[in-house]
Amino acid sequence: MGDRTLAVVLASGGLDSCVAAAWAAHRWRLAMLHADYGQRTEAKERECFDRQVAHFQPEAHLVVELPHLAQVGGSSLTDERMEIPEDDAPGQVPTTYVPFRNATLLAVAAAWAEVLGAGHVVIGAVEPDAPGYPDCRPAFFEAAGRLIDLGTRPETHIRIETPVIALSKAEVVQMGADLAAPLALTWSCYRREDVPCGICASCLRRAEAFRDAGARDPLTA
Amino acid sequence: MGDRTLAVVLASGGLDSCVAAAWAAHRWRLAMLHADYGQRTEAKERECFDRQVAHFQPEAHLVVELPHLAQVGGSSLTDERMEIPEDDAPGQVPTTYVPFRNATLLAVAAAWAEVLGAGHVVIGAVEPDAPGYPDCRPAFFEAAGRLIDLGTRPETHIRIETPVIALSKAEVVQMGADLAAPLALTWSCYRREDVPCGICASCLRRAEAFRDAGARDPLTA
Repeated sequence: MGDRTLAVVLASGGLDSCVAAAWAAHRWRLAMLHADYGQRTEAKERECFDRQVAHFQPEAHLVVELPHLAQVGGSSLTDERMEIPEDDAPGQVPTTYVPFRNATLLAVAAAWAEVLGAGHVVIGAVEPDAPGYPDCRPAFFEAAGRLIDLGTRPETHIRIETPVIALSKAEVVQMGADLAAPLALTWSCYRREDVPCGICASCLRRAEAFRDAGARDPLTA
Repeated sequence: MGDRTLAVVLASGGLDSCVAAAWAAHRWRLAMLHADYGQRTEAKERECFDRQVAHFQPEAHLVVELPHLAQVGGSSLTDERMEIPEDDAPGQVPTTYVPFRNATLLAVAAAWAEVLGAGHVVIGAVEPDAPGYPDCRPAFFEAAGRLIDLGTRPETHIRIETPVIALSKAEVVQMGADLAAPLALTWSCYRREDVPCGICASCLRRAEAFRDAGARDPLTA
């Protein structure tokens, strides 16, 4: 197993994973996977995922619930008692870090890929965009690839694809424009679900990225 | 972080993890973690977990739901349409294999350990007992340890402990007897929740183990 023409794409509803999905859609058939882990803006992210599914028309799509990430706690993204920061303190892991989240997401994606016989798992992690998030580094994804090799059936072959890992956020926006990714169907704000708050760390990074790319954000234009 | 005196123990309600918990309880304070992933006999396994919690008196315990493992499918343990085999076909991965399950369990345990500041994650995987399960091999756990190192905060240090990995099932029973592990509070049958069916692969392995250890199984004695 390991169909080189089928890819499981982790699609959060955010910008980076939408661009990663567009990149994958130019190469392979898609199976789109979304995780609901009790994050504050999940309703909006789920709506974006559904609209992206309508756009990309994957062969399969699946929404999984990962309530344990909120049960385990430790993140301002899932714990309403913690405050969402307005900027990232340099050299620190932000409170929006969800402990070991990407490992869980990759485990779920790899399990589904194994069942589907898909040869790729695509994740839109961006290292420069995730200051201090330990699970957004290339070495982490290399180790995850090794774990998938060792922990799945001998005939299963799954590659982790990180098409935007080394890009700046502005380069992600540029790549999205080049690939005609549906950036209007994405959400970045950590705090609100109606209009972007404009002041959380994620809104600030998104605004700066569109500005640096010389592009207009369809959400705020 | 990484309190060397606190361990997160994955406790399925089964025999192997109960012995692993007893081993850990002789060394460290415990936090016990159980996963409900929609397996057929979960009600019974959960009851065993609750009784083990009452026995071991851990500092914390947590039950997490992982419904995605059944959603993803591919296993006779979670898919009622697939049959539970009566024995293991040599050289094949059994249908009871749940795709990449142990990776998910370790990701959840590592996330909780990071939040608690625990220095150990204990899992009762037994390689000789899991013929063909790729995620029960020492190399898999070594790779998972590396992934945890890379994917958690710099100050987080978590070791994966596999105290029964190399033991035969009979040796696990013997170790449980030596440690006074509460083996009466465990469940192994894949099929039934009232009395062990006695004919599934898991019942057969358990019966053989007690016989080889010269011990009486409190469940069937």
